[in-house]
Amino acid sequence: MTRPPTFGEIELIARLADIFGAAPPEVALGIADDCAALDWGGPDFLLWTVDTLVEGVHFDLAYTSFSLLGRKSLAVNLSDIAAMGGKPAYALLSLGWPPGRNLAPALEFGQGLAACARDFEVTVVGGDTVSSTLGVAVAVTVIGRVPKAEMLRRSGAQVGDLIYVTGTLGDSAAALEILRRQLEVDPSLREPLVRAHLDPQPQVAAGRLLAQGGLATACIDLSDGVATDLYHICRLSGVGARLATENLPLSPGVRAVARMLGKDPEALALRGGEDYQLLFTSSPAQAARVPETFTQAGLEAPTPIGEICSGKEVILITGKKEKIISGGGYDHFRLDPS
Amino acid sequence: MTRPPTFGEIELIARLADIFGAAPPEVALGIADDCAALDWGGPDFLLWTVDTLVEGVHFDLAYTSFSLLGRKSLAVNLSDIAAMGGKPAYALLSLGWPPGRNLAPALEFGQGLAACARDFEVTVVGGDTVSSTLGVAVAVTVIGRVPKAEMLRRSGAQVGDLIYVTGTLGDSAAALEILRRQLEVDPSLREPLVRAHLDPQPQVAAGRLLAQGGLATACIDLSDGVATDLYHICRLSGVGARLATENLPLSPGVRAVARMLGKDPEALALRGGEDYQLLFTSSPAQAARVPETFTQAGLEAPTPIGEICSGKEVILITGKKEKIISGGGYDHFRLDPS
Repeated sequence: MTRPPTFGEIELIARLADIFGAAPPEVALGIADDCAALDWGGPDFLLWTVDTLVEGVHFDLAYTSFSLLGRKSLAVNLSDIAAMGGKPAYALLSLGWPPGRNLAPALEFGQGLAACARDFEVTVVGGDTVSSTLGVAVAVTVIGRVPKAEMLRRSGAQVGDLIYVTGTLGDSAAALEILRRQLEVDPSLREPLVRAHLDPQPQVAAGRLLAQGGLATACIDLSDGVATDLYHICRLSGVGARLATENLPLSPGVRAVARMLGKDPEALALRGGEDYQLLFTSSPAQAARVPETFTQAGLEAPTPIGEICSGKEVILITGKKEKIISGGGYDHFRLDPS
Repeated sequence: MTRPPTFGEIELIARLADIFGAAPPEVALGIADDCAALDWGGPDFLLWTVDTLVEGVHFDLAYTSFSLLGRKSLAVNLSDIAAMGGKPAYALLSLGWPPGRNLAPALEFGQGLAACARDFEVTVVGGDTVSSTLGVAVAVTVIGRVPKAEMLRRSGAQVGDLIYVTGTLGDSAAALEILRRQLEVDPSLREPLVRAHLDPQPQVAAGRLLAQGGLATACIDLSDGVATDLYHICRLSGVGARLATENLPLSPGVRAVARMLGKDPEALALRGGEDYQLLFTSSPAQAARVPETFTQAGLEAPTPIGEICSGKEVILITGKKEKIISGGGYDHFRLDPS
């Protein structure tokens, strides 16, 4: 008896892409980017994305509220639109709800989703409710738009480009450690971490700024961690990347949690998922304009964390040590060895 | 202690619609129809729908194959597009897969979905894979298009209109009884029922025919059973409906299964879900053209099952007996009293 093959998520998506076949020319971007981009006529691409959140995998009702869950179920989709430089416009909700569970929390969920929609000028135009004996399962799909010439992709990084990230890294992963292990952390450190995990802020304004200003050669949102998400850019751009450990933007909270766990904070920053910040690459000429453009728009300046190089791996440099970290982020289908 | 209120699905959707608020004018149809319809510029409305299938609720892997599940997860969305008179164009897949489960069946699933996509000239343009510890959960979202003047809605039925259905009713519900109770049924009767349940055929051609020919005042696809779905048309059109039991199109298989269960076959036809046939209303002038238009297009002629009347209930007439059956179909959030 032969053991059946097992796959990771990247391979699964590649195999499914083969099965689904080539797209017609009006599909500007299909499988393998954050969103699909369709030419529906007019000056903009139609951006389209879907994300599923499943109880026990993506959220734990012991930690989050239905209202925050509603916000997050929309926010993770808006983050995909942000990564393309787009403006989100409409959402559809498919809500799976356990038949025995009281439905009042479903309305709290709806209120949270509606509040996030208002924050980002998104209209919820419908959806579907089904019973789900497996627990709460939420699928949200979002449509947005981006002027055709402005759209950001994963595939444009070039040797010599600088690598930037918005915000700080690992906050969401640190919060998950706090919640799961019930770590006692000073409230002033704990609060922003937990907020980053339960109520992530999609970087729509930053994405629009990059797109309108022509400031990025490639962009992705950080859902699986820098090690995996930067590797996506490298694979699709045909390049490698070098990161300097000392440059990673770490919050005091991430450092504190790493210390309590006896881990390097870089592990949380590079392999933790769900930061929903943007990682982008800029040519040297663009890169010089990035910090000022952000601060002038009232946004925090992004942090340069490394450089695109030839090759095909993501390499982390700590002092004189170099280590390949390509794809070592959160893989939904790989078992956690820890 | 007061008992928390519980809701049915219609009430949940109405409450969520209130929470999500009014849509801007470019949203031609939002919550409460089969699809959202957006004016994205150009001569067509953009139709957009999402459906979720959850293991143990919408499918049982003891009965179906991954390949058929892939087909059906797209087909149920195409049925929503069909109900608007639209032509489906693109699909996105969000696949929740148990981390321990071998991924090869995920590829079979993908092949089934891809085959259905080819049948209906739909391009799968991307998606998302997540781990789901709760079992397989599938969300598919589809975009289609319909010329603005042709779009079918739920809200246009008028007193005096005839009520038509395509195909036969209750086949899918009868198949579910066969599968769950392991009923022994003659294979020639069993096979078409089981196919109707596991591999439903969305009525895209029928929907286009109605839309292009201006043959319907209102239309809906039968996902929850005639009693519930016709009631949706009545509520949104401000009318009532009268159905004649003797006119319901019943297959020999539905009659055989009902006999074995000691039930009236009408119960399966009116309250069984997942037929994915179209129910539509036609003005007397339109109605006269319906049968011939269908047969000339190579489609089976629909069956007239009743008439739109004043009032607000769906009434079933059996001989001289009248019975209100409004909304008594499958409600995802109501417990089955049987």
